[in-house]
Amino acid sequence: MDAIDVIVTKREGRELSSEQIAWVVDAYTRGEVADEQMSALAMAILLNGMGRREIGRWTEAMIRSGARMDWSGLDRPTTDKHSTGGVGDKITLPLAPLVAACGAYVPQLSGRGLGHTGGTLDKLESIPGWRASLSNDEMLAVLRRAGAVVCAAGDGLAPADKKLYALRDVTGTVESIPLIASSIMSKKIAEGTGALVLDVKVGSGAFMKNVETARELARTMVDLGTDHGVTTVALLTAMDRPLGLTVGNALEVAEAVEVLAGGGPSDVVELTVLLAREMLAAAGVSGKDPADALKDGSAMDAWRRMIGAQGGDPDAGLPTAAETTQVTAPSSGVLAALDAYQVGLAAWRLGAGRARKEDAVSFGAGITLHAKPGDVVREGQPLLTLHADDPSRFDRALEALTGAYTVSDAPAPLLPLVIDRVTA
Amino acid sequence: MDAIDVIVTKREGRELSSEQIAWVVDAYTRGEVADEQMSALAMAILLNGMGRREIGRWTEAMIRSGARMDWSGLDRPTTDKHSTGGVGDKITLPLAPLVAACGAYVPQLSGRGLGHTGGTLDKLESIPGWRASLSNDEMLAVLRRAGAVVCAAGDGLAPADKKLYALRDVTGTVESIPLIASSIMSKKIAEGTGALVLDVKVGSGAFMKNVETARELARTMVDLGTDHGVTTVALLTAMDRPLGLTVGNALEVAEAVEVLAGGGPSDVVELTVLLAREMLAAAGVSGKDPADALKDGSAMDAWRRMIGAQGGDPDAGLPTAAETTQVTAPSSGVLAALDAYQVGLAAWRLGAGRARKEDAVSFGAGITLHAKPGDVVREGQPLLTLHADDPSRFDRALEALTGAYTVSDAPAPLLPLVIDRVTA
Repeated sequence: MDAIDVIVTKREGRELSSEQIAWVVDAYTRGEVADEQMSALAMAILLNGMGRREIGRWTEAMIRSGARMDWSGLDRPTTDKHSTGGVGDKITLPLAPLVAACGAYVPQLSGRGLGHTGGTLDKLESIPGWRASLSNDEMLAVLRRAGAVVCAAGDGLAPADKKLYALRDVTGTVESIPLIASSIMSKKIAEGTGALVLDVKVGSGAFMKNVETARELARTMVDLGTDHGVTTVALLTAMDRPLGLTVGNALEVAEAVEVLAGGGPSDVVELTVLLAREMLAAAGVSGKDPADALKDGSAMDAWRRMIGAQGGDPDAGLPTAAETTQVTAPSSGVLAALDAYQVGLAAWRLGAGRARKEDAVSFGAGITLHAKPGDVVREGQPLLTLHADDPSRFDRALEALTGAYTVSDAPAPLLPLVIDRVTA
Repeated sequence: MDAIDVIVTKREGRELSSEQIAWVVDAYTRGEVADEQMSALAMAILLNGMGRREIGRWTEAMIRSGARMDWSGLDRPTTDKHSTGGVGDKITLPLAPLVAACGAYVPQLSGRGLGHTGGTLDKLESIPGWRASLSNDEMLAVLRRAGAVVCAAGDGLAPADKKLYALRDVTGTVESIPLIASSIMSKKIAEGTGALVLDVKVGSGAFMKNVETARELARTMVDLGTDHGVTTVALLTAMDRPLGLTVGNALEVAEAVEVLAGGGPSDVVELTVLLAREMLAAAGVSGKDPADALKDGSAMDAWRRMIGAQGGDPDAGLPTAAETTQVTAPSSGVLAALDAYQVGLAAWRLGAGRARKEDAVSFGAGITLHAKPGDVVREGQPLLTLHADDPSRFDRALEALTGAYTVSDAPAPLLPLVIDRVTA
């Protein structure tokens, strides 16, 4: 095998053989295929595409580059959710304990945020004492005790994906559906979950800006999961406006706890319940309805066990930012739009996100929404509260919000919360 | 400026701005843009193309990465030829002194061979004492004394091209007309020649296998030369069969000397005279006809001065290979085909070429043709003589020749020696 042959095959728009794919992913992981060869191949894949068999073999090669976890010895089915990332997307926080309370195990390996979308681990780390890194034995112990565990993926899982993702990030080769799908699914399949629900976000605040490409990504990932024996379903959901009323690490944890207490914003509650039902159905678990488990306190109990098992104090106060400022409605009318990307960018600039992997995040920084698109607002009423440790951050955050909201006579069209459902 | 922005611009099929091109070539040469970023960009260029302005700016950026020579202070116009490379293409050897004998200066920076096509410097180095590396002052002295100089390009000329070519070679991004054209032309323009004739080879033994892509490459290079103030003309010439009757370093030098002595194979003589007339016309030099200069000994005199000025002994015996073997005609009839690529590959395997830059070539190795396509042959007569220092090389060379020649009742169609002429 020769890297140039593999590159030229895809460059000329031909299909890579299964042998070529297995070889090139393995040789790249071992350092035998150089970064400059893999980036040329990634660009050829981005521009010329890959078919279902190729994407399957590519994903399999990335899984085989590391360990694959196995939960088949447990007494309940496993099920997980993955979101492609959005602004204010704290759904995993109430969802994992909720599904655990309804009878399935949720073994979730998660990540940190980069750019304008937050990361689940960053959010949970705002809880005093909580730690993201667990050994496999600790992960199993938390799963048995709480029914759900959310922790950081170790270095042993899909190392090929880790190396390739870092390369794509600096070579303009991120936006390839085959490469995005295989990156996500290699990690989720290696995680060992028996069922998987994908929340593919669509809109300005999401990676996928339009419904067609989001549907293609969803279809590709559902096929990949199915081909690897994981029952997989995808929902396409709205990310043209932020989800819920908070954006930022500790702010989102507080909102998640509200939902677990039976309250919280209606869109967060609706999506959490919907995804929980999908996760349970995919795992073949029936019995308790998730909407009930939010009301009877059993989901909250699972949350408290889950946080406590990872060293966190569920009763501790959450970090708050030192400074706040408000954005008020410029006139009276209907809040017609509130752009998810701009709100995410503003929260990032306030300190909620990081620009480089090695940066720290501010747990208290972020944005509170006082109105959602479609709400009636009065001139001068608060629309947003901005939270930051350092008030010098407000200017650039406000700049990011220029034109992000409009108040007019009538509501503007919004994406439905759930746009589509993609099954095997 | 940011490398990812430049890559994404071309990935999305948009035009690169002149500022983006100047920045990315310069930053790559300085090491600020990484190899893996440039290879992704090269693949995007290969697949999405570049327009005339972009190719012009790209070429200019590569020229600006190093020195540009200047011969404008000389008492005669300068003119040069560049061949895209073929099998048995020794034309530069008789051509440079021939044009010098007719009144123009030929300042040629040339290269070594890689793969199945030979390099002019390798051929000349088979002459005892001759050396390829000259300082700029030495180059000027040889030019003044002999009217022609053929030597190696120094490191100071288009270093961006040198770095980029090495990268393209290992990343499957060689076959891009904009990148090939800018690579060739950046070196030729930096060389400082006032006029340039391009010999774009077409056929199995050439880099361009078909007339359409060869014409596109010729058009691109003629435009580039014209836009940079160099009078440029291109001929598309046949490389479906070898040129002349010899393939291999010393064998080709001997054939070149025959041509300079007024003899030699008709195709080599015809192409040499044709290219000489084009070079002289492009330089605006009229007077002596090249066909006459081959007959009256003046071209041979220039050759002897040129070789002698670079330390070579024009009267010394040339190296010969220790072993020979013959290929004979399998039947009587007309030699219908003799595939240039296969003959080139066989000569390479006999030791005439190199697989890696650091390899040495065998000066005596190669192939002598005893018949050319269209010639009548008798069963058992010699078709080819193979020359090698090591007889163990014959087997793989003969393997390369399997199916390379056919003897039949009637001649097969061949490309005309000159297929087309492309001007500004």
